[in-house]
Amino acid sequence: MEDTYFEDIEPGHTFPIGEHTCHREEMIEFAGKWDPQPFHLDADLAAQHPVGDIIASSSYTLSVITRLIGENLSIKTLGLLELERVRILAPVRPGDHLTVTAQWLEKRESRTRPDRGIVRSSVDVRNQHGESVLSYTSTIMVVKRGDS
Amino acid sequence: MEDTYFEDIEPGHTFPIGEHTCHREEMIEFAGKWDPQPFHLDADLAAQHPVGDIIASSSYTLSVITRLIGENLSIKTLGLLELERVRILAPVRPGDHLTVTAQWLEKRESRTRPDRGIVRSSVDVRNQHGESVLSYTSTIMVVKRGDS
Repeated sequence: MEDTYFEDIEPGHTFPIGEHTCHREEMIEFAGKWDPQPFHLDADLAAQHPVGDIIASSSYTLSVITRLIGENLSIKTLGLLELERVRILAPVRPGDHLTVTAQWLEKRESRTRPDRGIVRSSVDVRNQHGESVLSYTSTIMVVKRGDS
Repeated sequence: MEDTYFEDIEPGHTFPIGEHTCHREEMIEFAGKWDPQPFHLDADLAAQHPVGDIIASSSYTLSVITRLIGENLSIKTLGLLELERVRILAPVRPGDHLTVTAQWLEKRESRTRPDRGIVRSSVDVRNQHGESVLSYTSTIMVVKRGDS
């Protein structure tokens, strides 16, 4: 996997981040530890409600995306600065297969640190029906390759 | 713990969400599973960089907040609709003690469903030095108590 430095980022370019099947056991394990709301945990209770089954914690879905970025891309990042408009657009249900894509939106050099730049990108998550379930725009710091 | 319904929410009201000490083991366990970047995992490598130690994954910090909300508040919520401007303001380090507070910003009744409303709030996370490490604004759906 080739490293992506600041210089490699082309605003406008769209690219796949990865795919993940959200297994019931993983969703419940995450929610039990980090977001123990009944509608993330209790299938019997959820069966009485319109969605009819448990739905994923948004923290779980965000963590799935973060893991896919780490596994499938090799961006030389120094970390996240901001997420804008994290929109929860549809429920994520047990067994849903998510496909995550991204687009580089813009980049600029750091005003204070010549070894890095700031990059904005949009991320879109769709289920197996092609329906958007979550989207956001992120701003990260990325290392410059420099002259080496 | 008294349930908080839509009718109970007073825009302008500020309230504590809770406190959490970020233990190294918990930070590393989370990052190992969900955000395996070296700067979240490898203290030896991190020692060579300006921060000098591992820093928390933002997914971890967001999950800590979500858990505190579930443990310490009893908001009759139907789920999250949107996060606006999740700003990572300072690194969270092993041993940091976080204090989370929130403010109700505004609320409105649902246009389509008479049993619920939409509520915006701001969340601020500070460390033991009083420094803001993360903030965001969220929009959630909240159940109405109704006439019962």
